[in-house]
Amino acid sequence: MKILLLNGPNLQLLGTREPGIYGRDTLASITAEVTVLGSELGCEVSARQSNVEGELVSWIGNARAEGFDGIILNAAAYTHTSVALRDAISAVALPTVEVHLSNTASREEFRHRSLIAPVCLGVIAGFGKDSYILALRALCAKLSR
Amino acid sequence: MKILLLNGPNLQLLGTREPGIYGRDTLASITAEVTVLGSELGCEVSARQSNVEGELVSWIGNARAEGFDGIILNAAAYTHTSVALRDAISAVALPTVEVHLSNTASREEFRHRSLIAPVCLGVIAGFGKDSYILALRALCAKLSR
Amino acid sequence: MKILLLNGPNLQLLGTREPGIYGRDTLASITAEVTVLGSELGCEVSARQSNVEGELVSWIGNARAEGFDGIILNAAAYTHTSVALRDAISAVALPTVEVHLSNTASREEFRHRSLIAPVCLGVIAGFGKDSYILALRALCAKLSR
Amino acid sequence: MKILLLNGPNLQLLGTREPGIYGRDTLASITAEVTVLGSELGCEVSARQSNVEGELVSWIGNARAEGFDGIILNAAAYTHTSVALRDAISAVALPTVEVHLSNTASREEFRHRSLIAPVCLGVIAGFGKDSYILALRALCAKLSR
Amino acid sequence: MKILLLNGPNLQLLGTREPGIYGRDTLASITAEVTVLGSELGCEVSARQSNVEGELVSWIGNARAEGFDGIILNAAAYTHTSVALRDAISAVALPTVEVHLSNTASREEFRHRSLIAPVCLGVIAGFGKDSYILALRALCAKLSR
Amino acid sequence: MKILLLNGPNLQLLGTREPGIYGRDTLASITAEVTVLGSELGCEVSARQSNVEGELVSWIGNARAEGFDGIILNAAAYTHTSVALRDAISAVALPTVEVHLSNTASREEFRHRSLIAPVCLGVIAGFGKDSYILALRALCAKLSR
Amino acid sequence: MKILLLNGPNLQLLGTREPGIYGRDTLASITAEVTVLGSELGCEVSARQSNVEGELVSWIGNARAEGFDGIILNAAAYTHTSVALRDAISAVALPTVEVHLSNTASREEFRHRSLIAPVCLGVIAGFGKDSYILALRALCAKLSR
Amino acid sequence: MKILLLNGPNLQLLGTREPGIYGRDTLASITAEVTVLGSELGCEVSARQSNVEGELVSWIGNARAEGFDGIILNAAAYTHTSVALRDAISAVALPTVEVHLSNTASREEFRHRSLIAPVCLGVIAGFGKDSYILALRALCAKLSR
Amino acid sequence: MKILLLNGPNLQLLGTREPGIYGRDTLASITAEVTVLGSELGCEVSARQSNVEGELVSWIGNARAEGFDGIILNAAAYTHTSVALRDAISAVALPTVEVHLSNTASREEFRHRSLIAPVCLGVIAGFGKDSYILALRALCAKLSR
Amino acid sequence: MKILLLNGPNLQLLGTREPGIYGRDTLASITAEVTVLGSELGCEVSARQSNVEGELVSWIGNARAEGFDGIILNAAAYTHTSVALRDAISAVALPTVEVHLSNTASREEFRHRSLIAPVCLGVIAGFGKDSYILALRALCAKLSR
Amino acid sequence: MKILLLNGPNLQLLGTREPGIYGRDTLASITAEVTVLGSELGCEVSARQSNVEGELVSWIGNARAEGFDGIILNAAAYTHTSVALRDAISAVALPTVEVHLSNTASREEFRHRSLIAPVCLGVIAGFGKDSYILALRALCAKLSR
Amino acid sequence: MKILLLNGPNLQLLGTREPGIYGRDTLASITAEVTVLGSELGCEVSARQSNVEGELVSWIGNARAEGFDGIILNAAAYTHTSVALRDAISAVALPTVEVHLSNTASREEFRHRSLIAPVCLGVIAGFGKDSYILALRALCAKLSR
Repeated sequence: MKILLLNGPNLQLLGTREPGIYGRDTLASITAEVTVLGSELGCEVSARQSNVEGELVSWIGNARAEGFDGIILNAAAYTHTSVALRDAISAVALPTVEVHLSNTASREEFRHRSLIAPVCLGVIAGFGKDSYILALRALCAKLSR
Repeated sequence: MKILLLNGPNLQLLGTREPGIYGRDTLASITAEVTVLGSELGCEVSARQSNVEGELVSWIGNARAEGFDGIILNAAAYTHTSVALRDAISAVALPTVEVHLSNTASREEFRHRSLIAPVCLGVIAGFGKDSYILALRALCAKLSR
Repeated sequence: MKILLLNGPNLQLLGTREPGIYGRDTLASITAEVTVLGSELGCEVSARQSNVEGELVSWIGNARAEGFDGIILNAAAYTHTSVALRDAISAVALPTVEVHLSNTASREEFRHRSLIAPVCLGVIAGFGKDSYILALRALCAKLSR
Repeated sequence: MKILLLNGPNLQLLGTREPGIYGRDTLASITAEVTVLGSELGCEVSARQSNVEGELVSWIGNARAEGFDGIILNAAAYTHTSVALRDAISAVALPTVEVHLSNTASREEFRHRSLIAPVCLGVIAGFGKDSYILALRALCAKLSR
Repeated sequence: MKILLLNGPNLQLLGTREPGIYGRDTLASITAEVTVLGSELGCEVSARQSNVEGELVSWIGNARAEGFDGIILNAAAYTHTSVALRDAISAVALPTVEVHLSNTASREEFRHRSLIAPVCLGVIAGFGKDSYILALRALCAKLSR
Repeated sequence: MKILLLNGPNLQLLGTREPGIYGRDTLASITAEVTVLGSELGCEVSARQSNVEGELVSWIGNARAEGFDGIILNAAAYTHTSVALRDAISAVALPTVEVHLSNTASREEFRHRSLIAPVCLGVIAGFGKDSYILALRALCAKLSR
Repeated sequence: MKILLLNGPNLQLLGTREPGIYGRDTLASITAEVTVLGSELGCEVSARQSNVEGELVSWIGNARAEGFDGIILNAAAYTHTSVALRDAISAVALPTVEVHLSNTASREEFRHRSLIAPVCLGVIAGFGKDSYILALRALCAKLSR
Repeated sequence: MKILLLNGPNLQLLGTREPGIYGRDTLASITAEVTVLGSELGCEVSARQSNVEGELVSWIGNARAEGFDGIILNAAAYTHTSVALRDAISAVALPTVEVHLSNTASREEFRHRSLIAPVCLGVIAGFGKDSYILALRALCAKLSR
Repeated sequence: MKILLLNGPNLQLLGTREPGIYGRDTLASITAEVTVLGSELGCEVSARQSNVEGELVSWIGNARAEGFDGIILNAAAYTHTSVALRDAISAVALPTVEVHLSNTASREEFRHRSLIAPVCLGVIAGFGKDSYILALRALCAKLSR
Repeated sequence: MKILLLNGPNLQLLGTREPGIYGRDTLASITAEVTVLGSELGCEVSARQSNVEGELVSWIGNARAEGFDGIILNAAAYTHTSVALRDAISAVALPTVEVHLSNTASREEFRHRSLIAPVCLGVIAGFGKDSYILALRALCAKLSR
Repeated sequence: MKILLLNGPNLQLLGTREPGIYGRDTLASITAEVTVLGSELGCEVSARQSNVEGELVSWIGNARAEGFDGIILNAAAYTHTSVALRDAISAVALPTVEVHLSNTASREEFRHRSLIAPVCLGVIAGFGKDSYILALRALCAKLSR
Repeated sequence: MKILLLNGPNLQLLGTREPGIYGRDTLASITAEVTVLGSELGCEVSARQSNVEGELVSWIGNARAEGFDGIILNAAAYTHTSVALRDAISAVALPTVEVHLSNTASREEFRHRSLIAPVCLGVIAGFGKDSYILALRALCAKLSR
């Protein structure tokens, strides 16, 4: 199984970005931890990050052609504003898990609506780096059935 | 560690209730599976179900006195209407994970708002019985830190 | 044919409760009249009343197991606030008729929306005790086809 | 007793119009069935149909002068848009029953609001041609008291 | 004079529940203090608490039959969601005073609307346990006129 | 000067229609009174009434061709729902005065918005038959400048 | 008959203030013209202007004590924001006519709602200084009946 | 192929009606041009205009019985207010193209919502008389497949 | 202890102003009664009334400098529209009790929102002149702790 | 004449992307067909696609400098979220036609609002690849006048 | 050049009023600093403060007659509620700069809308006393062109 | 001090883009003028422009690492739609001034909300190129304290 792990805008700053909200783990360390668990679960994890909405759209659109079986997506700020990402997920039709480090429901009103969630398999939010770990477990379980 | 697993209205019908949405697992079988995983993770899981909002409120309110360390809550329909459950979680101040079998974001508009999520640790939705499994992992990981 | 006739909160007070709105018939006399008509139409009518949302949810959830063929439901105040009752009706999947003594459309704004109507067979409102009589006729006719 | 049975726009197409929603009975056959029941109940039923809002308004406005004792109204699409029909019902001050073939509450959002219901005696919706039968019974019972 | 003092969900936790918001007095101590003042004012105070909306509805509905002259109600979370409690107050038609420990107007948006206040005599909010004391004074003064 | 006086739906019932709101004058007597004042002011008044929105639209559309210099319009219920009447007034580009017998601002919420007023010269509402008298004076004064 | 003619904020600038909207007549010339007509109609007109909401409130509140029989009020900007003026009109309970020079319905959205109109006798808007003339005629006619 | 070309309210005034918005072509000249193109494309075009919503509803309802294969509809003002036209299109189930002379999206807010578009094949707006030409091409292409 | 008792617009009319809503007590008699109770409780009460929002703002702003320990405020109509009064209370930072004679929650929709309540200690509404009495008790109790 | 044909996010996937909604034509085949028609009509068509909002913004901004006379734009998901594309069209001030393959009005609510349409010449939606063909005809006709 | 510097409600309390939000500078010291800069820039600055909306309205209305060339306005709380101030600025037609000490966009929702900004030259907010300094520079620069 | 001056979409077109709104200065000339002033004030100004939201996000995210002390941001269209830019500003935690050439409050409704302003130091809008000049002064003053 091949899993595409995508991270959206500002996540390159993890570790220093508002650690009270996002924690002190860097994206590199989270990715490493997820990759190790992936190996244990028989999943090859490829991780990418971009601040450009259109680049994320392109990666999702190409995911099937690149041989991916599923997607873990932390769309960050684009979660709440991007119809294009939603359409990309619908178009590629791969099972996708939406993750968030923080519990978006306890933050600003505009973070309560996800444009992406309705076309995802499910949502995991609020567990810090564990959100990624749980998403990988969820996706592997799904793909294994 | 002691975990209180609470299920809200209509979940006693799992297995026969709209299986296209909720799957064919019964609440008993899900509970059994979660309990087994709990044992592996060193967590004693106590599961209860009620259709009465006030009974769920009472159980949450008493959870600390009963010695629980955390709560997994599928509030079902009350997710979207119950300020009382929200207040109970705030009052008892135990880490609580909100779970849903279905991806509520892809269903009716009135299921998109959770009154409970803002006072929970995090939310897991859309993975069928795996939502419970993941919630237990999330809560155990949190309590172990 | 077996019909479950359910009455929600405050309906135990019928006869003395705001008679200008709800009339002077007691719930007992309405139930009696409906039961007699049921006998004529070949329907056994079982009537229950509860002020507890969760108890109504349980009764609906068990209705199929108890051998009922259809439900007449006056959810009263819960009509406008209860997702749990709506989910119970969807879950049990028995034909259900929503009834109201008063014409809710001519009362306060918050009584204009029914959370339950979308999952019912139909709605009858505004005819006092005749709403129940008509609902029984409607349900019997439906079940006889 | 004389009853005016009014049908609004597109109801002349009943039988062929979206039968999944509206059923396969024609307006003529429904009218015939209602008329027969009317005879049994001692009510003379006069049925009319128009696609023109203003013509329906005129018929309602003249109903008292024509000697009618009550009105059964399926305003169809005008239910949701016509203040003029509402005003006509208020003006003529005859007991009026609003009927719908389909359960409007389970259809598009814009069909959930009735501008007419607040000035009617009551509403019956969702029972196909039986909605008319029940409305006649309701109106006769009301007029007989 | 007999006064029914009703407390809604989570108020059994007073004293330990978010003391920054609700204070450190227990429900028992508040009740005791109110009862003493009641004796001074010639009012017999009966205090009850329930987390179950329907139980509160029943108590209100029976209040007249039980010989009460007025009601003091802290509906807590149900203040903002319960049409059933509102209907119960309208049905029993006893003067009712709505009380809150905290100033709900300075808290979350969803606590700003009371479904119950429009059918109460008046509202007292924000004075901690003194809200109850003041409510008793207000109700006694009203009943004495 | 030639003035077209148009009356919309249900106004043929004036005199008997809800006299508490609309008064006891008939449309004929109002028209007569306006016509007499018109003669005094040098205005020929032609009065028409229709319950059909499209007929009112046609009359307005033809008004310039028929030689009218201005329009007095009581669109009644269509005031609040008719974009077509608004467009007709814009199209014919004759000075138009909107009148109402009752003070629509003190009635139901849906009567507070006029779709027509923004394209009229002005609005006069609340003075019973005097609304027409005042409108004629206003329009004559305008046309005489 | 004694009539109080009140003008609200910025109306002291009439004649120079945005003449494209408000015309070139000064408040003094309008007042003079209204006073003359008042004499003809047997009405003594007293005109006042203030930019201070509270001063307008005081004048209205004292109007009955000062012997006035009715009020003509151009509340200008306060039309859309002042509950205090509305309450003053309700309190003094004298027939009041709301006037506007411009047709507020064709201007900015926030000018479409009048907080004052629901407690007035009627509204006249859009006829420049003639709005005042018409209002005086309307009020005199009303008071003479 | 037979095409029904329907024009709604105020379109009889084209050529003189607000030419800055609607252009200077008359409805007759547009119809002529469309008819000629129809002949070239093998489509017989029948054009009708009415200001009466109900007459448009009737024409659409009868279109299949009259042998039409598709409809081009400029519903003008009724686009934004008519559920009846929408229902007629759904009922007759012929491919229908919505056209507008002007670009409704750049005009008043209330023109931005079309009640009819959701049940049409597609929408063409903003090209003056060319909107009709393009609609005919679109419909012919569709019907030819 | 020194208490500033402030009354807003139209309250000078108490006794004659809509006595069905506001009662028959004059402001002078209420003030006298409050002052007497103040003496008993060891509070010096200074009462002022103004119809001018800005004057109330000034009095509140100066209250600390004048030596007041707390404020009782019936802002009347300004309750619902005045950000300036809210800011004044925040600025002066004295404990303030909001009072209303009537139960604003049972009146017009626009009276349900208080701009001032969120910065007050608490709210007392609906008890006629007793609202003031209770407010004084509440404030004295608060200041005495 | 030179026409710039721009395609937005996910349109590179046409042919395989949700063919039930978007059809089975690839972007290449649509482009080819449009280019051929362009040659016939005397228009040179340059087609580009990007998933990056900012790249589309740049292309539009440069269009005049590159010698284009008009633009055909399928902004896809950005239609509903991009103020930047709207501003680019306003800035470059070239006639622009908005096209959509699907009828956006019959899809999700958030696709009903176009931020771009108000600054375009017109809109064509719902005709699959024919939407492009029609847009080219519309634009050529416009540019040829 | 003569500049009128106006300060609205509660600004007389600057220095002691919520210094965490508004800073510790008094209005006198800010005014002094602005006046000195005015001298350097060749602008005579006249500063006034009032808590009374109508007094601010009067000052603005008279500004042209008093020989002022521009206005700097901190309307404070009235920013969000005063149509009268907006109308005064439109009426006097002098270039006006809106200033705020705090960044209103980061405070309560009701402070996000300015009724005044649309008729001002521009807005400067969030820089404490520097907001005034910048406003003076902006206005002088504007007036010098 | 080092200042990062960022310009968003379409600002590369300044000088030719809608000069009635944005003026005739080019971005190069504005940048030059700001840079000169920066030198005078002891600030090194680095200016960049991009149409790509993600590129702006990256520049802000890197600003601290690049040694910048503050940011001046004209996010143009992204002001109203970009949560990603808001998050970038929060993440980098440098003082940021939002600037606009035009007074966005006097333009279309969708330009009235800034998603970015709540996390900025302050906002300056409406002064053309002077907005930049003032922003530089504001930021330098802030950084110098």
